[in-house]
Amino acid sequence: MEKIRLQKPDGRELILYSRRHISRDLRATSPGAEPILANPHLRWHPLRGEWVAYASHRNDRTFLPPPEYNPLAPSRSEEFPTELPVGEYDIAVFTNRFPSMTGDATARPELSTPCRPANGVCEVVVFTQDSGTSLAALPLSHFELLIDVWAERYSELGGQKQIQYVMPFENRGEEMGVTLNHPHGQIYAYPFVPPIPARELELQREYLQKNGRGLLEDMLAGELAGGKRLITATDTAAAFVPVCARYPYEVWVMPKRPAPSLAALSGPERRDFARTLKTVLMKYDALWQRPFPYLMVFHQAPTDGRDYPEAHAHVEIYPAFRKPGRLKYLAGTELGAGMFANDCVPEDKASELQAVKVEINE
Amino acid sequence: MEKIRLQKPDGRELILYSRRHISRDLRATSPGAEPILANPHLRWHPLRGEWVAYASHRNDRTFLPPPEYNPLAPSRSEEFPTELPVGEYDIAVFTNRFPSMTGDATARPELSTPCRPANGVCEVVVFTQDSGTSLAALPLSHFELLIDVWAERYSELGGQKQIQYVMPFENRGEEMGVTLNHPHGQIYAYPFVPPIPARELELQREYLQKNGRGLLEDMLAGELAGGKRLITATDTAAAFVPVCARYPYEVWVMPKRPAPSLAALSGPERRDFARTLKTVLMKYDALWQRPFPYLMVFHQAPTDGRDYPEAHAHVEIYPAFRKPGRLKYLAGTELGAGMFANDCVPEDKASELQAVKVEINE
Repeated sequence: MEKIRLQKPDGRELILYSRRHISRDLRATSPGAEPILANPHLRWHPLRGEWVAYASHRNDRTFLPPPEYNPLAPSRSEEFPTELPVGEYDIAVFTNRFPSMTGDATARPELSTPCRPANGVCEVVVFTQDSGTSLAALPLSHFELLIDVWAERYSELGGQKQIQYVMPFENRGEEMGVTLNHPHGQIYAYPFVPPIPARELELQREYLQKNGRGLLEDMLAGELAGGKRLITATDTAAAFVPVCARYPYEVWVMPKRPAPSLAALSGPERRDFARTLKTVLMKYDALWQRPFPYLMVFHQAPTDGRDYPEAHAHVEIYPAFRKPGRLKYLAGTELGAGMFANDCVPEDKASELQAVKVEINE
Repeated sequence: MEKIRLQKPDGRELILYSRRHISRDLRATSPGAEPILANPHLRWHPLRGEWVAYASHRNDRTFLPPPEYNPLAPSRSEEFPTELPVGEYDIAVFTNRFPSMTGDATARPELSTPCRPANGVCEVVVFTQDSGTSLAALPLSHFELLIDVWAERYSELGGQKQIQYVMPFENRGEEMGVTLNHPHGQIYAYPFVPPIPARELELQREYLQKNGRGLLEDMLAGELAGGKRLITATDTAAAFVPVCARYPYEVWVMPKRPAPSLAALSGPERRDFARTLKTVLMKYDALWQRPFPYLMVFHQAPTDGRDYPEAHAHVEIYPAFRKPGRLKYLAGTELGAGMFANDCVPEDKASELQAVKVEINE
């Protein structure tokens, strides 16, 4: 992996990654040259026991590019520079221009609930320079590079003193609220362990203490043995529809051994993981011969310095559709009570995905 | 409150409520005469520690009415009977034809995770016979009747042995996934206390034990004193944008005293609550002069026979929009981590709602 670090005219960081050599002549661009004045803060929600982030500057977007302008494509015009420079590289990572959290936030309003500056990091990960492709369609070696990038960002962001949790994710498709179709994801690095991974870790910890084995390790062993919900597997990684899927077509992808993060995987393990995840995403797009919208989140060990023997790194993918063109809406019972109602049985959705044949070009 | 109970041709229950006399000649109708063959089950999600409901029969909807057919309007045609009879009444409640939970479910698949029949109740509450109106626009006395209906359903469903939690809610607007515009809500009665209210109760209990006063009582007192986020108040009820709003335009409505449920409110208290809630909903619709989509959920004390001195009944309303025509999408950080990112500051949204003038016709 080849990499260079640059600074954008507005002060934000840009990192470029490549499978090949990267020219040192590349110049970072940004849509504006003014420094980013984000000053987001967190408020404590006492009834749910969680932090909420407020970033009102996100509504003050004054930049008015031409309609065909894509800020994630390489800068072709001097008049409307984008987030990406022109040049040879595969993947770009930069600080979000409209962040929900920033390292230098200082806001701490005096309110009736505890407040603190939102001292996290929000990064954008542009998967490729090609606006017309998708994550699933990247060549395998390019996809493998992305696994390395996610692993490196986990280590680097997680190594920052205030960061306790690093979560890469991809919102994919207009149905998920995405306004830019250029293949990209994001990384949120939180100054606390957020409630959903915290809950998952708590239950994994209880299971490990009780059984001497990991919860996901045991779930995975069952899926590999039974096969009914297994989607694909390589030597060291596997993907399956969980028996308790909340979303139709939900799939989990994980290394077979309980590695705490992508960063903890060896080179061959990362390549297996890349092939397994890519196979799932290709099956999604092939299922109905159309781009398959989803939310994909990575759950890994917190980076707060504590020990997490229970953490088994995994990806959870929540597809937006329950059948072609029909969205799964989250409504009263999901958002108000926390009980998901799924109209589909996981075994049926798994067999649909199993039936889709895809071929990976090396 | 006048009320009669009827049985639909397919066996489901129908209850009609009215401010006036109801004729005993009314006949219940249903879109089909065949008994409902729902047999939903619950599976335990070991990584999140929650139940997920599976109701695959919900996809088997064979009934093909004419496109203008509205199953929630009174039955005008013998050929296509609806869910509602013709006659004089204000509000109708009936068992959902495609339920996620039913009292007589027996399914208990043998799987790698604990399973049980989904022995809950799913009811539809039709707010009015008039398809062209909305909850906010109901006359005050009709709205008051609805509060009585919600209170009565809480007591009656909560009184069933297997029911531990009763949650009325309204998904309003196509943006929330609603396919029928006829004003209606739903009630889910669960055979367990679902995770979101369970978490809220846990935090309320801790607060009460520590402070000798209720969490919502104290939050409300602060809002009434400060006024910055207060939307409307009557003698015994109030509505405000919470300091920790997760959704732009989020509003909570509650009785001032920590009553555990609507059923525990006196007649005058219910009338105050009705006026307060109706005012909020009218402000929403008046804000942009268009129907305002939202999810509205009621959190009350569980009905599992235990004592809940910490439970303070309240309504949480989650609007779908963050500005006119722009949805607030739940994406990576909300659904994957559990940290909401709100682009709006609660104080700003409160002042917009405060500025909207509405007048209630008695």
